[in-house]
Amino acid sequence: MAIETISNTQVLFNSVPVGEPTETDFKVVTVAINPQSHLQENFLLIKNLWISLDPYMRGRMRNPEKGSYSSAFELGKPLTAGAVGEVIQSNSKLYNVGDVVLGHFDWANYTVAHEKAIQQKIDQSKYKFPLEAWLGLLGMPSLTAYYGLVHIGKPKAGETLYVSAAAGAVGQVVGQIGKKLGLRVVGSAGTDEKVKYLTETLKFDAAFNYKNGDFKENLKKFTPSGIDIYFENVGGEQLEAVLDLMNENGRIPVCGMISQYNGAAYGVKNLFNVIGKRLLLQGFIVGDHYNIFPEFLNWMMENTSDGSFFYETTISEGIENAPKAFIGLLKGENTGKQLIKNI
Amino acid sequence: MAIETISNTQVLFNSVPVGEPTETDFKVVTVAINPQSHLQENFLLIKNLWISLDPYMRGRMRNPEKGSYSSAFELGKPLTAGAVGEVIQSNSKLYNVGDVVLGHFDWANYTVAHEKAIQQKIDQSKYKFPLEAWLGLLGMPSLTAYYGLVHIGKPKAGETLYVSAAAGAVGQVVGQIGKKLGLRVVGSAGTDEKVKYLTETLKFDAAFNYKNGDFKENLKKFTPSGIDIYFENVGGEQLEAVLDLMNENGRIPVCGMISQYNGAAYGVKNLFNVIGKRLLLQGFIVGDHYNIFPEFLNWMMENTSDGSFFYETTISEGIENAPKAFIGLLKGENTGKQLIKNI
Repeated sequence: MAIETISNTQVLFNSVPVGEPTETDFKVVTVAINPQSHLQENFLLIKNLWISLDPYMRGRMRNPEKGSYSSAFELGKPLTAGAVGEVIQSNSKLYNVGDVVLGHFDWANYTVAHEKAIQQKIDQSKYKFPLEAWLGLLGMPSLTAYYGLVHIGKPKAGETLYVSAAAGAVGQVVGQIGKKLGLRVVGSAGTDEKVKYLTETLKFDAAFNYKNGDFKENLKKFTPSGIDIYFENVGGEQLEAVLDLMNENGRIPVCGMISQYNGAAYGVKNLFNVIGKRLLLQGFIVGDHYNIFPEFLNWMMENTSDGSFFYETTISEGIENAPKAFIGLLKGENTGKQLIKNI
Repeated sequence: MAIETISNTQVLFNSVPVGEPTETDFKVVTVAINPQSHLQENFLLIKNLWISLDPYMRGRMRNPEKGSYSSAFELGKPLTAGAVGEVIQSNSKLYNVGDVVLGHFDWANYTVAHEKAIQQKIDQSKYKFPLEAWLGLLGMPSLTAYYGLVHIGKPKAGETLYVSAAAGAVGQVVGQIGKKLGLRVVGSAGTDEKVKYLTETLKFDAAFNYKNGDFKENLKKFTPSGIDIYFENVGGEQLEAVLDLMNENGRIPVCGMISQYNGAAYGVKNLFNVIGKRLLLQGFIVGDHYNIFPEFLNWMMENTSDGSFFYETTISEGIENAPKAFIGLLKGENTGKQLIKNI
């Protein structure tokens, strides 16, 4: 073991954003870790390799008294994220030095973590995926897509699926699972480049730029038989337009409402459609559904091994660039899963 | 058979209301039926005994091009309603003169109806209920209450149920079924008299007047453990307040949104609760669920025969008073089921 002090760059939660977060809501600091200091029992020192950034984290950047499904980040402490890391030191009976693990670690080079922060050891001999796949293709967003579409959407071949934020981490998987299941898949995104990606690379049946022209007219044009499943990532005005175009007995897995996280919420005025069309809206948090992880893993093995399943990530290098990457994520500047590579 | 002409007072759909319906949107006419004119095959002449008025009918008073779950009433023709009537003449193999039947007939003294307009013959020897019970206690609103609460709400003893429009035709049954199933039942209504009725007569655990004071504060006060099931009859601002008070994994059977039927719809701004709290919203139309009628009938027999189940109706006499009664119904002037007695 080297004697030198380990230099650990961390991103701290500096202030609760007013509206969209800015860089001043974060604080990048470098602290020293003494590699000879004793780890408490059941604790480990993890070196992060990959860190996942996700829109839900905006909801955690709040004052602690506001209730939500995930606890608030602590002001002055590092933000946390799903991550893949390597065990550098271990005072745990469950994990050894050199293990590569999936868990919930700091936005930092290193995390001193309780063993409970680790979700699982990654068996690289059994699952031959690149490590970042565990945060992406096999990660929380894909499990989210699978659970929402399959278990709530209950798709039947021939039905029409509309997915908003379709080029996002969840959306692109939703659409591709939909195609595998025989659905007509329509998606929207915020740039023409993403739209092209959806139709040309992901083979969606149709896609359009929600910023161009009349959203509802465009959606209607691309869903001539109406919408049976709306995989909801956006909320607000999009939800309102979709409600008018849903078919009877339609299902809406409510995964996210990214348009509603920053600033003023939009009032949805046509919820009466829920009655007349017998619609189901079911909110869900993927964290409740890790019991289906084996089923999901099997499905992914069967359906992605032939190379027909496309997964794109936006990789930013260096912990110190995480705030900028996260701000960009909330503005839709990424394509697909946003990762930080610890260099 | 008498030779005299039968005088038939009918209420016609005269004009599409702008906002709340007024009496000029209806037209009361008296036409003659020649009792000797030949009935077409499978048709019957029905004398109405009881007619049910329901808020959903407002939605049918529209121009025919607007989609909804029930077809538009036809301008210049009688409005129609669930009704109990007696067969006066029959050219049907299924029903005989003298049969008392439940069906969908005109707002009128008499209807010439196809046998398909009849839902069932009422066996008065087997089911010893007063005839109007088939439109009330055993009628569509109670089946609505039962289906929504039991099949969508999936109540567990000890949970908290909130029901809006609780003194209405559906609401009063929802609350009482809830009490039988061991729920804490909280309701709201629009007058202090109705509130008293809910707590004193129907034995709700709590009730309040939604027009007095801060709605959300009142509701919060009466639901100290939060809300597990919201039986939604009102929509709009009430739904918005309730969403903030729902417990995790809460269920919202969406039965009606009476606040949204007339004029400007309210925009619900906090649907993000659906995600964080993993809420279910499920719209339903009772007409889809008549397959559970036997189950429902058995439950009602078991639970209402001891007299502990209270059912109230507002009875208006005379077909010609139906428009006024219907307008009053939409304004909440009735208590419980609104019926017209044909005299």
